[in-house]
Formats: sequence, structure tokens, C-alpha cells
Amino acid sequence: MERDDTPLRLQPPYYAVIFASRRSDGDEDAYQRTAARMVELAAAVPGFLGAESARDAQGVGITVSYWRDLDAVKAWKQDSEHRIAQNLGRERWYEWYSLRIAKVERDYVFDHEDQGLTPAAVDSPA
Amino acid sequence: MERDDTPLRLQPPYYAVIFASRRSDGDEDAYQRTAARMVELAAAVPGFLGAESARDAQGVGITVSYWRDLDAVKAWKQDSEHRIAQNLGRERWYEWYSLRIAKVERDYVFDHEDQGLTPAAVDSPA
Repeated sequence: MERDDTPLRLQPPYYAVIFASRRSDGDEDAYQRTAARMVELAAAVPGFLGAESARDAQGVGITVSYWRDLDAVKAWKQDSEHRIAQNLGRERWYEWYSLRIAKVERDYVFDHEDQGLTPAAVDSPA
Repeated sequence: MERDDTPLRLQPPYYAVIFASRRSDGDEDAYQRTAARMVELAAAVPGFLGAESARDAQGVGITVSYWRDLDAVKAWKQDSEHRIAQNLGRERWYEWYSLRIAKVERDYVFDHEDQGLTPAAVDSPA
């Protein structure tokens, strides 16, 4: 498989927003357009550190976004375009979702390219 | 789409272990067998609260497991059969993975079945 991504390497402590959801049927084009726009918008918020996302064939998806601190999480939550998308999500796109705000205390990355289990931030003092 | 799952409703604070990975090619049967066994084993660890998982067609997956406290996370990490699986994962199954241990401070659930955005634990005093 072609290597087109790498694990995110961050430096704890930082915050994770864990968004799990089940898509409703349909409206796929508008959903995909908005999802792509949200990635773009989130990346422009000061304190955004990165995100990881997967959705399986049964419609269950998990997106985890990472943030420097709670102020950054709050700024993203309150972004006006994001708020409109949240409303559309509840009305049209999701059967259910859960949102969890969590403080990351420790992390590790394994990567065949560096052949070892290391703290996620390579310059970590841990 | 048939409703065959519901969002996990938990009561903060609790811990999340965020496992993101890219599968290597092949060895799918052994991988699936071990993954199913790990779900079974984790569920038997005292303090296990639940898990959510999604893997997309490109091989990137995210599994988030939830735990009562750090002692429960540690007990799961050190389970002997889980340790063997961790080694096999590094040797055979994953191109890379990241593991983040995070304390969940707040959560919310939206569900069309109860038509509202509520704290994830319905009996939450918050």
C-alpha cells in the first residue's frame, strides 16, 4: 500500500475532541462538501494541531481533532459557519453523534519508518 | 438504514484511549480474529466502559476505548494476551499507529430518538 500519510506527532498536554457519529441516509454531496469545508475552517483556527478521521462502510465514523487548549476548542465550537454546519448535521446528516472533550496526558507513536515505539513528539523530554 | 447501534452514554470524568492506525497489506484473517478477541478481552477488564471503532476503505482506522480510570487503562495495557497482540501488531499488521491517553472532561450526545443535545449520561447532574 502506498505510503500517503504519517501518524500525527504532537506534544502533550493538548486537547482532543472525539466526534463519533452515524450518518443518516442520503444528502451525500452536500455532506461531503460541508465536511471538506469544515476541515479547511478548523485548520485556520489558532491552536488547531491536526485531525484524524475514519468512516466505515456501515456509516459509523470517528473524527478526532487536536487542539492546543480549551480556548482553541471553544473558538472552533463557536465559529459561525461551523455553527450552521452543526445545525445541518442535527437536522439532516446524523442519526446520532457524540462529542467528547478530553485532555491528552500521554501519547506514543509506532512507525515502521523509524522502527520503534516513541513518544509522539520526537523532541519530547519524556 | 437499520438502527443497530446507539451512542455510548458515559459519565465524566473517565479516560479515553485513542488508537489510530494504518493497516499493512495482508494477513487479514489473523488480524480480524485477533481484533475480535481483543474486544472480548478488553470488555472483561474491570473498569472498561465501552469502545467505538471505524476503519475506512483506505486502511486508516480509529478505535477509541473508554475506561473508568488510569488503573483500568494500565491493567488492559499489561494483559498478557494483549501484549502478544501488540507485538504482532508492530511486526505484521500496522504500517504505523498512535496511542493517546486522555481524560474526558465533558461530553454530549445528539440522538434523533431523543431529539436533543444532552450530556452523554442522561442522569448527569451537569
